[in-house]
Amino acid sequence: MSGNSFGQLFKITTFGESHGEALGVVIDGMPAGIQINLDELKKELKRRAPGQHAVHTSRKEEDLPEILSGIFENKTLGTPITVIVKNTNQRSQDYAALKEEYRPGHADKTTILKYGFRDHRGGGRASGRETLARVIGGYFAGLIIPKVSFYAYIEEVAHFKMKEKPKDHSVDRGEINIPDKDLSDEVINFLKVCKQNGESAGGIVTLSILHSPTGLGEPVFDKLKADFAKAMLSLPACIGMSVASGFELTKLPGSQMSSDSKNFGGMEGGISNGEEIVLKMAFKAPSTIGEKAKQGRHDPCILPRVIPVVESMAKIVMADHFLRQSAYEIFHS
Amino acid sequence: MSGNSFGQLFKITTFGESHGEALGVVIDGMPAGIQINLDELKKELKRRAPGQHAVHTSRKEEDLPEILSGIFENKTLGTPITVIVKNTNQRSQDYAALKEEYRPGHADKTTILKYGFRDHRGGGRASGRETLARVIGGYFAGLIIPKVSFYAYIEEVAHFKMKEKPKDHSVDRGEINIPDKDLSDEVINFLKVCKQNGESAGGIVTLSILHSPTGLGEPVFDKLKADFAKAMLSLPACIGMSVASGFELTKLPGSQMSSDSKNFGGMEGGISNGEEIVLKMAFKAPSTIGEKAKQGRHDPCILPRVIPVVESMAKIVMADHFLRQSAYEIFHS
Amino acid sequence: MSGNSFGQLFKITTFGESHGEALGVVIDGMPAGIQINLDELKKELKRRAPGQHAVHTSRKEEDLPEILSGIFENKTLGTPITVIVKNTNQRSQDYAALKEEYRPGHADKTTILKYGFRDHRGGGRASGRETLARVIGGYFAGLIIPKVSFYAYIEEVAHFKMKEKPKDHSVDRGEINIPDKDLSDEVINFLKVCKQNGESAGGIVTLSILHSPTGLGEPVFDKLKADFAKAMLSLPACIGMSVASGFELTKLPGSQMSSDSKNFGGMEGGISNGEEIVLKMAFKAPSTIGEKAKQGRHDPCILPRVIPVVESMAKIVMADHFLRQSAYEIFHS
Amino acid sequence: MSGNSFGQLFKITTFGESHGEALGVVIDGMPAGIQINLDELKKELKRRAPGQHAVHTSRKEEDLPEILSGIFENKTLGTPITVIVKNTNQRSQDYAALKEEYRPGHADKTTILKYGFRDHRGGGRASGRETLARVIGGYFAGLIIPKVSFYAYIEEVAHFKMKEKPKDHSVDRGEINIPDKDLSDEVINFLKVCKQNGESAGGIVTLSILHSPTGLGEPVFDKLKADFAKAMLSLPACIGMSVASGFELTKLPGSQMSSDSKNFGGMEGGISNGEEIVLKMAFKAPSTIGEKAKQGRHDPCILPRVIPVVESMAKIVMADHFLRQSAYEIFHS
Repeated sequence: MSGNSFGQLFKITTFGESHGEALGVVIDGMPAGIQINLDELKKELKRRAPGQHAVHTSRKEEDLPEILSGIFENKTLGTPITVIVKNTNQRSQDYAALKEEYRPGHADKTTILKYGFRDHRGGGRASGRETLARVIGGYFAGLIIPKVSFYAYIEEVAHFKMKEKPKDHSVDRGEINIPDKDLSDEVINFLKVCKQNGESAGGIVTLSILHSPTGLGEPVFDKLKADFAKAMLSLPACIGMSVASGFELTKLPGSQMSSDSKNFGGMEGGISNGEEIVLKMAFKAPSTIGEKAKQGRHDPCILPRVIPVVESMAKIVMADHFLRQSAYEIFHS
Repeated sequence: MSGNSFGQLFKITTFGESHGEALGVVIDGMPAGIQINLDELKKELKRRAPGQHAVHTSRKEEDLPEILSGIFENKTLGTPITVIVKNTNQRSQDYAALKEEYRPGHADKTTILKYGFRDHRGGGRASGRETLARVIGGYFAGLIIPKVSFYAYIEEVAHFKMKEKPKDHSVDRGEINIPDKDLSDEVINFLKVCKQNGESAGGIVTLSILHSPTGLGEPVFDKLKADFAKAMLSLPACIGMSVASGFELTKLPGSQMSSDSKNFGGMEGGISNGEEIVLKMAFKAPSTIGEKAKQGRHDPCILPRVIPVVESMAKIVMADHFLRQSAYEIFHS
Repeated sequence: MSGNSFGQLFKITTFGESHGEALGVVIDGMPAGIQINLDELKKELKRRAPGQHAVHTSRKEEDLPEILSGIFENKTLGTPITVIVKNTNQRSQDYAALKEEYRPGHADKTTILKYGFRDHRGGGRASGRETLARVIGGYFAGLIIPKVSFYAYIEEVAHFKMKEKPKDHSVDRGEINIPDKDLSDEVINFLKVCKQNGESAGGIVTLSILHSPTGLGEPVFDKLKADFAKAMLSLPACIGMSVASGFELTKLPGSQMSSDSKNFGGMEGGISNGEEIVLKMAFKAPSTIGEKAKQGRHDPCILPRVIPVVESMAKIVMADHFLRQSAYEIFHS
Repeated sequence: MSGNSFGQLFKITTFGESHGEALGVVIDGMPAGIQINLDELKKELKRRAPGQHAVHTSRKEEDLPEILSGIFENKTLGTPITVIVKNTNQRSQDYAALKEEYRPGHADKTTILKYGFRDHRGGGRASGRETLARVIGGYFAGLIIPKVSFYAYIEEVAHFKMKEKPKDHSVDRGEINIPDKDLSDEVINFLKVCKQNGESAGGIVTLSILHSPTGLGEPVFDKLKADFAKAMLSLPACIGMSVASGFELTKLPGSQMSSDSKNFGGMEGGISNGEEIVLKMAFKAPSTIGEKAKQGRHDPCILPRVIPVVESMAKIVMADHFLRQSAYEIFHS
């Protein structure tokens, strides 16, 4: 049953059910003496928070982070950092009706198959709400590798597809993390209609990482691409990851594939080569549809809110591998 | 630098460079008292071996497994099983010329960036040859879950695409693991031309798993799909994995997505639901092309040989999760 | 810096500084559906709490556990259980004076050597207060192996030594965990004098475990005795552990050693043999002495309060190994 | 069943049964580019080898190390280093008689309790022979921390006790690792008599470590003393470990304990303080006695041969913690 930790040297352990007392994270392996900024952390959480936009769930949660340990005088102690967010928005309702309800595409049935018991008031650990703990982890991970730039955006929603990728990380990502004004407007309209109709949509997220150190990734199993894949596929609703345009690149002959280093997605042999790292993640449409979805407490599409979560998981992977490689720096200089 | 182990309770540690003395694997966490069959193991290794078909590399290696530990009177002892395969096929040649050669798309340059030193005689740990150790691990993993059926096949090579998926695991996969005679012939011809021209090709592999136990996968990070993703992306040349047709499924509206449980690919909430598990893996075209490729000691397409490796990694993931779940059986019955 | 987790399948991660907001623990790997009893947990915490006896520190802390996750309707969910205890008893005082004070025998100086920064208001993570998180972990571990009986007691304090060991686990351990009324009285008087004089004392704790399952312990590194040793030596002030009377047993000739299975301390080859497991732990005298100690906010001897902590660590080790062995039960029956 | 790996960043995995094909070790996490010296490795193995002295077992094994991976042109590649030693000295004899023989104090019975099956020809993994793999691991660990000096010696055998500890690491340890000529002679005579009589003896080993870096050890569970304890108690026949004279130090009042930093054994708060690290290990008398012992293929006392093993385990712990701390150096300077 233990599977709630991620990372080797920089390690996060998340906890909390969607309808329990609180969610949170313990971050073990943070360097000491690093200045933190609570406002920055809150800003990251707000990027993920529900109710920020008409196309989101109408639920509003404040997601106020409380630091329980690991910080003293606004600096990291090198000890485990624990941050929790209390659950405040549970509605008083008759949960009993949900007890025997197993929603397809959710973890309801498999939770019973696995544990024989569940908190039927909500998604429990399978809820998207769990990802706020990852965003907190990502904030601290980012402090370890401040020069590395992470920029995720929505590239596709349903059949809507971005024509030209943003030229760099300074491009404004707009209201719902689609850095293409026209496409963004189209998708917003589409998702509003989805929401009214109790329909939902999936899509594809692209993550670009610039200024990556070279040499990150530990062959043969902890290759950088392998740990990115685990990180991403551990996200709710994530059903695929590729390095660059992986599945499409399979159609390229070797001569063409190798002629442009962009096709390697910033990694060769699973080790970062210092170039732009590009990953694509597929997210399915939420399974909550129909009358239930029309009540408004569900996202018709999780992609707009998943962007900071994707960046956070990538930061966690990179920070961990940065520390793992740093352990050997002394021998290579 | 340590990243050569995979799994928690069923754990493999692989070792060996392509041009070193031997490759091998230590399998820790094998149950005791299980009958083994060396011929079956050799058969699995032969499925991965080079030189079996005209479209393979012309190198021929015997890949003879030697068991060093963990087996007594043909049964497992519950102690670490070590199996090695000696490297016998190194050609005496002037390797010095290769010392400064960094092949694009290979780990040559990143190995230097990471370690500052490498065995320039070959791909070292990044060589596809390392995967024979995984096939050995997969053989033993399979003994833990003998009722689970694993069936991988090539679904696409370059622009060639299978029209109908095989109806079950009994369908013959033909000479190069394409269970569609016509497509197989087409691809064989195509790859022969590739080989002559020093060109190479990528493609997509589909893996079907039947009779999976329910309840496997450990939220929230060690979800079954997450560990499959790590396992697959740890393979050389693997640049993508999806649950079922992940990237295409993103285009389906939620109503359609949820109407057919096949779309969940055998996992809900990252936990196995007992239905068919389906994964798709993208492999890029080998980067060795041109004159070097024409010398014949490289595969124009690795997919035919990657099939047993994909199955092996899946077996290792399943066996490990089966044991992890078994630890709790006593509490759930 | 990451070293705050213990256990493989049953894994605890503790967090919190002595003078921070809260201390706590995340317990990952708890079976689902197990009934808990908050009063029992509080009772365990009270056994460790300061201020219970005249020979303790005069500090009084309530140590009220708050459950943040993993429990629903008084039963475990199989998800991470998080329990915190808020720090309420910090005195408003001028901590600045402590900033440059490095107390010998404490972690003050080594914390700076390691992290370059510390929370100088108290012992931080090195404080004995951290062990309350272990007691919480131990409570849950005990629920996994309810039939196993753990009984720790003080055998020696300074030069005072118990003459006859208690005949079984039902013997009352008295006010300060010395199950020998006369010795207990003597030691209480001795420690009262110590407290008045700003002196401190160390001693030896014996732990007896009855009804252990057989077959626990994983050769060759995770032997049961090895994991007990790590668990015990990870405790503040613990400076030794032996299996049975280890150091004295070295004087016995093999013929005598092997003639009485009691000398094996319940383990052969590092694997439990089903007999009574006996461990002895050495704890040094607290380093806080003199004027500082006379202020009364320090224990003159930590042994009375360390008893439940020792039992808790042992429970955690046993529960973890019980689950690890359970994973293989299906193959051995 | 998986418990054959030790270490986090510098990780060894040992394998092999005493009467199987070979024993060996995979060392993962070795820095790249480090020069090795095979003769030095052989010398270390010879220190542990049987048959070197009249008080040893009369078995003679060559213990010839074969390097299978991880080394190229006499330098480490940063990839897993695998070294094996073939078993050559098995006597052809009727092992069937041993099948049902469960020797007290050995792992024979507990192995059956745990695994239900064993290699009855010898001690299997519980054999002292397994420790040769640890000596190999220790050799490589030592290369990571070349300036740290490890010096173990026998301090007590049965009732024979060293009066004055050696003044530094340059003192010759004599024929059987007792750096006190008179005591050494006494013990040699005593052990010869033991051997003739089929009797055996235990004793105490002291390990001194000089020039340790400061700041090693990861609170709260991976404290340096905790990992030393696990390392030592994982050794066959080891039944106790203390920091400095742990059990005797419990008798000192706090004022005296804290007055001499030697009493801290080089660690405060479980973190190295840069002073001499001192550990004491208790080893029981071998359980093989009587007629069987008189046949001469067993050591009457394992302490003389355990010295290099103790040093090796300490090197492995130190190298691992050195790398773990190195990962954070960049943040502290």
